[in-house]
Amino acid sequence: MSANTFGHLFRFTTFGESHGPAIGCVVDGTPPGIALSESDIQVHMDKRRPGQNKYTTQRKESDTVKILSGVYDGVTTGTSIGLLVENEDTRSKDYDDIKDKYRPGHADYTYDQKYGFRDHRGGGRSSARETAMRVAAGAIARKILGDGVTIQGAIVCIGDIAINRDNWDWNEVGNNPFFSPDADSVQSFEKLLDQTRKDGSSVGAVIEVTASGAPAGLGAPIYAKLDADLAGALMGIPAVKGVEIGAGFEAARLAGEQNADEMRMDGDKVSFFSNNAGGILGGISTGQDIVACFAVKPTSSILKPKRTVDKAGKDTEIITKGRHDPCVGIRAVPIGEAMVACVLADHLLRHRAQCG
Amino acid sequence: MSANTFGHLFRFTTFGESHGPAIGCVVDGTPPGIALSESDIQVHMDKRRPGQNKYTTQRKESDTVKILSGVYDGVTTGTSIGLLVENEDTRSKDYDDIKDKYRPGHADYTYDQKYGFRDHRGGGRSSARETAMRVAAGAIARKILGDGVTIQGAIVCIGDIAINRDNWDWNEVGNNPFFSPDADSVQSFEKLLDQTRKDGSSVGAVIEVTASGAPAGLGAPIYAKLDADLAGALMGIPAVKGVEIGAGFEAARLAGEQNADEMRMDGDKVSFFSNNAGGILGGISTGQDIVACFAVKPTSSILKPKRTVDKAGKDTEIITKGRHDPCVGIRAVPIGEAMVACVLADHLLRHRAQCG
Amino acid sequence: MSANTFGHLFRFTTFGESHGPAIGCVVDGTPPGIALSESDIQVHMDKRRPGQNKYTTQRKESDTVKILSGVYDGVTTGTSIGLLVENEDTRSKDYDDIKDKYRPGHADYTYDQKYGFRDHRGGGRSSARETAMRVAAGAIARKILGDGVTIQGAIVCIGDIAINRDNWDWNEVGNNPFFSPDADSVQSFEKLLDQTRKDGSSVGAVIEVTASGAPAGLGAPIYAKLDADLAGALMGIPAVKGVEIGAGFEAARLAGEQNADEMRMDGDKVSFFSNNAGGILGGISTGQDIVACFAVKPTSSILKPKRTVDKAGKDTEIITKGRHDPCVGIRAVPIGEAMVACVLADHLLRHRAQCG
Amino acid sequence: MSANTFGHLFRFTTFGESHGPAIGCVVDGTPPGIALSESDIQVHMDKRRPGQNKYTTQRKESDTVKILSGVYDGVTTGTSIGLLVENEDTRSKDYDDIKDKYRPGHADYTYDQKYGFRDHRGGGRSSARETAMRVAAGAIARKILGDGVTIQGAIVCIGDIAINRDNWDWNEVGNNPFFSPDADSVQSFEKLLDQTRKDGSSVGAVIEVTASGAPAGLGAPIYAKLDADLAGALMGIPAVKGVEIGAGFEAARLAGEQNADEMRMDGDKVSFFSNNAGGILGGISTGQDIVACFAVKPTSSILKPKRTVDKAGKDTEIITKGRHDPCVGIRAVPIGEAMVACVLADHLLRHRAQCG
Repeated sequence: MSANTFGHLFRFTTFGESHGPAIGCVVDGTPPGIALSESDIQVHMDKRRPGQNKYTTQRKESDTVKILSGVYDGVTTGTSIGLLVENEDTRSKDYDDIKDKYRPGHADYTYDQKYGFRDHRGGGRSSARETAMRVAAGAIARKILGDGVTIQGAIVCIGDIAINRDNWDWNEVGNNPFFSPDADSVQSFEKLLDQTRKDGSSVGAVIEVTASGAPAGLGAPIYAKLDADLAGALMGIPAVKGVEIGAGFEAARLAGEQNADEMRMDGDKVSFFSNNAGGILGGISTGQDIVACFAVKPTSSILKPKRTVDKAGKDTEIITKGRHDPCVGIRAVPIGEAMVACVLADHLLRHRAQCG
Repeated sequence: MSANTFGHLFRFTTFGESHGPAIGCVVDGTPPGIALSESDIQVHMDKRRPGQNKYTTQRKESDTVKILSGVYDGVTTGTSIGLLVENEDTRSKDYDDIKDKYRPGHADYTYDQKYGFRDHRGGGRSSARETAMRVAAGAIARKILGDGVTIQGAIVCIGDIAINRDNWDWNEVGNNPFFSPDADSVQSFEKLLDQTRKDGSSVGAVIEVTASGAPAGLGAPIYAKLDADLAGALMGIPAVKGVEIGAGFEAARLAGEQNADEMRMDGDKVSFFSNNAGGILGGISTGQDIVACFAVKPTSSILKPKRTVDKAGKDTEIITKGRHDPCVGIRAVPIGEAMVACVLADHLLRHRAQCG
Repeated sequence: MSANTFGHLFRFTTFGESHGPAIGCVVDGTPPGIALSESDIQVHMDKRRPGQNKYTTQRKESDTVKILSGVYDGVTTGTSIGLLVENEDTRSKDYDDIKDKYRPGHADYTYDQKYGFRDHRGGGRSSARETAMRVAAGAIARKILGDGVTIQGAIVCIGDIAINRDNWDWNEVGNNPFFSPDADSVQSFEKLLDQTRKDGSSVGAVIEVTASGAPAGLGAPIYAKLDADLAGALMGIPAVKGVEIGAGFEAARLAGEQNADEMRMDGDKVSFFSNNAGGILGGISTGQDIVACFAVKPTSSILKPKRTVDKAGKDTEIITKGRHDPCVGIRAVPIGEAMVACVLADHLLRHRAQCG
Repeated sequence: MSANTFGHLFRFTTFGESHGPAIGCVVDGTPPGIALSESDIQVHMDKRRPGQNKYTTQRKESDTVKILSGVYDGVTTGTSIGLLVENEDTRSKDYDDIKDKYRPGHADYTYDQKYGFRDHRGGGRSSARETAMRVAAGAIARKILGDGVTIQGAIVCIGDIAINRDNWDWNEVGNNPFFSPDADSVQSFEKLLDQTRKDGSSVGAVIEVTASGAPAGLGAPIYAKLDADLAGALMGIPAVKGVEIGAGFEAARLAGEQNADEMRMDGDKVSFFSNNAGGILGGISTGQDIVACFAVKPTSSILKPKRTVDKAGKDTEIITKGRHDPCVGIRAVPIGEAMVACVLADHLLRHRAQCG
């Protein structure tokens, strides 16, 4: 219900603006007795952290996370976990220009329509800076899921350049600034982004997240479907415009006999011949890999001039300066992983509640 | 939270299985004083109702909805509205075959994994029969939104045949059994579905739903985004595998300057040059048309034999007889409209709560 | 959040008015595989059922409950359980008098203030008739709690006559029309109620509910306290004006050393010397009996004339005819039991979710 | 649902332990454009703040609240408000004694039963220190309710000494350390507490909170009753064992004609002759003063030795040293006010959502 809370049994509530003193969140529902330290969270924060290479925003934030509560003697107590990250490198005057102008593609116009005004500095609450707390919560979600569940994300397209899926190697994802699983794609992505930056433009991206090892039985029919919750979670990441589970839109083009994943016993376990379902049938996990894809639109903050209007209702033009990612989709990879982790942890607890 | 409740302030809770005595729902949060009769609901039920033409299941259900509470003297009282639809044409023995076999693509295996057993008759609770109540709730949601908001759905693809968008005419949608807005597509769709039925196969579809006239300001940043809620709502329709808002996956291939919808004043109103955003920026409606697309996989119940396993852990084959839609995507059109209506009505009340 | 839903993981949503065609509810969250039949529910419905003796309303309702979904082959499936009870004996014209007059002590004036109008027949939605569905849901809650947990309610006061606690015998509760655990009190209660009825007046009552056998650990600190949820549940029963846990208001008068329940080991189990806490410390159950008390005001529908106003804003007088309980507190006993059962079942699932 | 979140549309989520680095909360749902500063909150924090006189704990905390987000240019933005209070004066070694012993009347035993272990320092999460954040949230709730609604609390009993209601003067409440509205009671309270402290004992208290000026129509029938939500909110304050609305338990002893509050027109407004209902009928506010009472048990931390058991399952004795309030009920006055304010603000938004 709450506009700032995600999840049901495993849930987190965030606060903070791009240019305020700090951002933070409260994580609730974590089972007691789970080992948790700041460094368990920091390792994931560091993947999303800005300013690490020339393909992301040059804002310098250490994104150092502090645990303020809910952990005692190195383990979770079962009570709410307070997390805080101080903002270190705000340059609010970069945004003076946009105080009264609506940036196309941004939430400026809609905030004013909803609330009557807005904190324009760095986008205020609509800034993707908030996603740092999603990554923090996701790190705790992974702890709940345990070592048996692995959640990994990767870029599959940037702009109109797709990776070659035959080259997919999860080990490559950490070796390049694009989270690409295809080593051969890296040079093309570099070239594309260098040109994009030179043009003062931006590009979109498609990200795929896979969760391996999740048990069968997570999710529930009707309005607690795992795929519906994943879709909501991923579409809720800033700038996302599309979500697919398994074969996604391609499934609509398949014949029934092509799409349905056939089964066979493999020893005493059920084995599937394919995974068009993306690991989910009837809203419930099958035990196969859970596979979700999402599309991120190109960064709306660009140097090319765009027509827009201002608060006073006058036509005008805008150029968005400041320190922006030429492709916000890249840093969406760890965010997508975090959201998938949070949905799964929530459903693990929900399943345990009803089915013991 | 509840597995059988949809929505927050405008919300409904459904019950009922395919082969039980009845299905029903409780609709909650409706403002008082809104004119509402059974026929207001029935008109939408009739669009989804099975057995109306040879391209949908031949099960004969009148889907007659009864209002049991919450309406007095022809207007809503503000208390919960109980709705009931009796099941009239169940043929449970059609399903004896699948009692112990898992139909590929269906929720059979996952139900057993989650609950330990299942009501297999007609799919039990996982049957798309439950969606009748979504359409009923959607009819009430439309009443809340009022006449100024028009929500319409249409087929844009069946299998690999797409409509021609240049022919789009909303008036055509009611003139053909496919909810196609392109009169020229009808013959191709007929041919495709006749062949599909002959082959004992099935096909998928893509549906587009548009809401016109919704005010700017609906939705909220972070975890109450209108697009995230639409994505969850549409992905939660049975057999859906993908959801897009506005330009969707195509947005990822655009440059920033192509994607961002420029603005100009049109008298005292803001006008947009394009609608790649699908009417939503930062999770909040812009006042443009809200446009969402979703992909429905081909019907999993087909006559072609498929490899599967049974409850005892033995390999086997299955042919799914019974009365099935060759393309479940067709009847998903009114369901998609209903879900969009429910999300918007919910957000209208939520917006009013916070912003007055 | 919903105005018509109670509970979180174990939850139910009710609908129906006093003089509509039926009342019903949807029960959600029940674990799968629990044996459940209509008679399991009916036995509790029969305790609350009107018209069973001269001390309750003479409205004749069999309160026959039908299970419409969620049970297959005699056990719960884990999906939503639809329950329906048809109204059989409505006499709406009894209420013509109060269409435009506000009965003091009733929700008439407040409904009009909130909604602008109301269904006045039998109180509409505000009728205690709705509580039949609470009792039905409570019967399912008991099944979830299992045979190890016993929930029993009893009258401890009617008007200014209190039972003698030294005579407390749970076996007596079913032997008299007052749910009194003190056989000696029955004659006094009869006399009081006969006189009350003769006077066209009414009396209040205090009810105590005890849950034995509930495990330690239910509830949670801060905003999921078991005692807070019990207080909300019991105060939400129509006509309730006060709730106590354990020593209740008396605790405020005790010294710290009198109030705190001392502990000793009894074999390998912890034993308490007293139970001023009512089985709950810090919002979490101790394993002792959970004891809650609630006060029910006298029936507001009385034959004695009262001053009031009408819808048009004119001063007037009112006499409330119709078939009313002279003491609504009596039938509140099974309702109180049901609410306690529902709170405990909800917390059992919530505890299992977090603590496994 | 969440164990650490209170409220629905106006809601707050707290974190922090007695002896951690800080406590804090996130307040969500606040309408945009409301003037809010740290001093608006601090004034209420200061009423609850420890160490202000010899009748409360001597722990020295300035309880300085910082607003981290959600306020821009002095007004609320409509996004989540992050609040932080640093802990300044923790003396954890005071608690070494109780690491393995269960203090009777405290949550020690139940925490261990639920979670398997606990942060014992100062009670950890179960410490009443968390209530500072309730007071902070309550200050924001008051801003939402506006100047027309006045919420005031007062002590009505300490131990077995009751105030004289004939002397009630709201202006006196701030003039004495007991929040007593009866100037004549102060000396007796001083004497009682001096003796109690000397004895190493503690006493309970009863608090009454009144909300004046709240509009009619707040609350809703069935499961969103204003009185039920108030009961849950007040019973959820640490150490509370009983809650009454209006006449409370006394109502059970009245005859119907005594209890029902008669009405008369007073100009064009409805006027009531009495307020046994405590301003709430059928769960909905009448427009009269909303009056709620709650009983606080005596402080469980006392110097008198008590029998108890330890973690190892051995019998033992305990004396609770440290800096404790001899009557925790006194500082419960501003907490009770805050909870009432939060419930009313939540219901104001809920009412506006449904009824416009």
